[in-house]
Amino acid sequence: MFETPDIYTLVSGSAEGTSRLGAFDNAILKAGIGNTNLIKLSSILPPDSSFQNKIIYPKGVLVPIAYGCVVSGKQGETIAASVAIAISASDGFGVIMEYSGVASAKDAEERVIKMARDAMEHRNMEIREIKSISIEHIVSARYSCSFAAVPMWYSKLL
Amino acid sequence: MFETPDIYTLVSGSAEGTSRLGAFDNAILKAGIGNTNLIKLSSILPPDSSFQNKIIYPKGVLVPIAYGCVVSGKQGETIAASVAIAISASDGFGVIMEYSGVASAKDAEERVIKMARDAMEHRNMEIREIKSISIEHIVSARYSCSFAAVPMWYSKLL
Amino acid sequence: MFETPDIYTLVSGSAEGTSRLGAFDNAILKAGIGNTNLIKLSSILPPDSSFQNKIIYPKGVLVPIAYGCVVSGKQGETIAASVAIAISASDGFGVIMEYSGVASAKDAEERVIKMARDAMEHRNMEIREIKSISIEHIVSARYSCSFAAVPMWYSKLL
Repeated sequence: MFETPDIYTLVSGSAEGTSRLGAFDNAILKAGIGNTNLIKLSSILPPDSSFQNKIIYPKGVLVPIAYGCVVSGKQGETIAASVAIAISASDGFGVIMEYSGVASAKDAEERVIKMARDAMEHRNMEIREIKSISIEHIVSARYSCSFAAVPMWYSKLL
Repeated sequence: MFETPDIYTLVSGSAEGTSRLGAFDNAILKAGIGNTNLIKLSSILPPDSSFQNKIIYPKGVLVPIAYGCVVSGKQGETIAASVAIAISASDGFGVIMEYSGVASAKDAEERVIKMARDAMEHRNMEIREIKSISIEHIVSARYSCSFAAVPMWYSKLL
Repeated sequence: MFETPDIYTLVSGSAEGTSRLGAFDNAILKAGIGNTNLIKLSSILPPDSSFQNKIIYPKGVLVPIAYGCVVSGKQGETIAASVAIAISASDGFGVIMEYSGVASAKDAEERVIKMARDAMEHRNMEIREIKSISIEHIVSARYSCSFAAVPMWYSKLL
């Protein structure tokens, strides 16, 4: 089985590159997770997960992660990525929402916070707390990427 | 390693939402797997897997899953998602095919059944059984999502 | 947790099919991994991983894999997919880059090699070796797919 993660953090990064994937690689490096293997989740915070200010991953490990990501090659455009987690008052279960696109960091963050709130209301769950992170970038002459994520991990591996 | 799943089921759901991701979240809730973390597979039923009418997943777990999914914001459009598994007569190995798009549930299902049948013929495997599921939805004023899937799991965790 | 893979290989395949997913299925069969469940990684070679000329996977297992893949239905078009790994001189850590699109195999491979080299330079890591693979295909009357990948696995399971 896949073991369920029990710790998480929030990260973001923006960067440029000479290719779309290169810009993505540079952005996840800035976010501090560029030397790991990301496995994209769709997108729940497991109950009773514990927030960490920072998680240091060994190189090459497989990291369960929820993320939003945008790459653009259109010079002058403002791009943004954001994630929000709405966390339940009862058991710490959370719904993670992500958004990325042509937007400001502020607009992207307001949007994901609303989406996360809606998702909890739809589940009839009372919200204890909302955590969010957002980042924007003005596209330069090359490819640019903005990335925001909730990487998860295992406390026993710290 | 990732342990190989040994049980599976078929689920589907359609729903609306105020964003694309919100519609997806509501559709997977309707399908009964909305409080888990989906890890998308490409797409084989492991040999000797056992079909379950329903699998109850603990909240937040990482679920290996093959799925088809469509989101549309075009009012009045009929969207559908379908998955089919063609299962081998010899060892229960199966190929899972998914389709989603602007279609009726019936058309989507006929298409994935043909695709799964072709995949087994291409492997020179005799088919014991085909299982499939399909769902359609007429897009309302908001975003709509149709979702069909083969979620897998581990009998020892039931 | 997800255990970190310690062996890897390079594979590629091109094939046709009557649907996009069918063409993909046939291409991964040609690449020798069509009877497994692919879990897409983004995309690091773990330190001290050992290269294998070929890995034989049991049917249905969940395979961590980095890949590039293109499907086209445009008759006569030349498509290609390529992956490259730039491997560090110090600990065998590597960055995997993938590219796929309307291109020749040679152009795709030159591109991913440059991308992998750039990614290591950006990390200030000295390169010991670059491994790469590339494949091209001229699209026929049906859908065609080119696929190139770095599938990983676990030496203890060989």
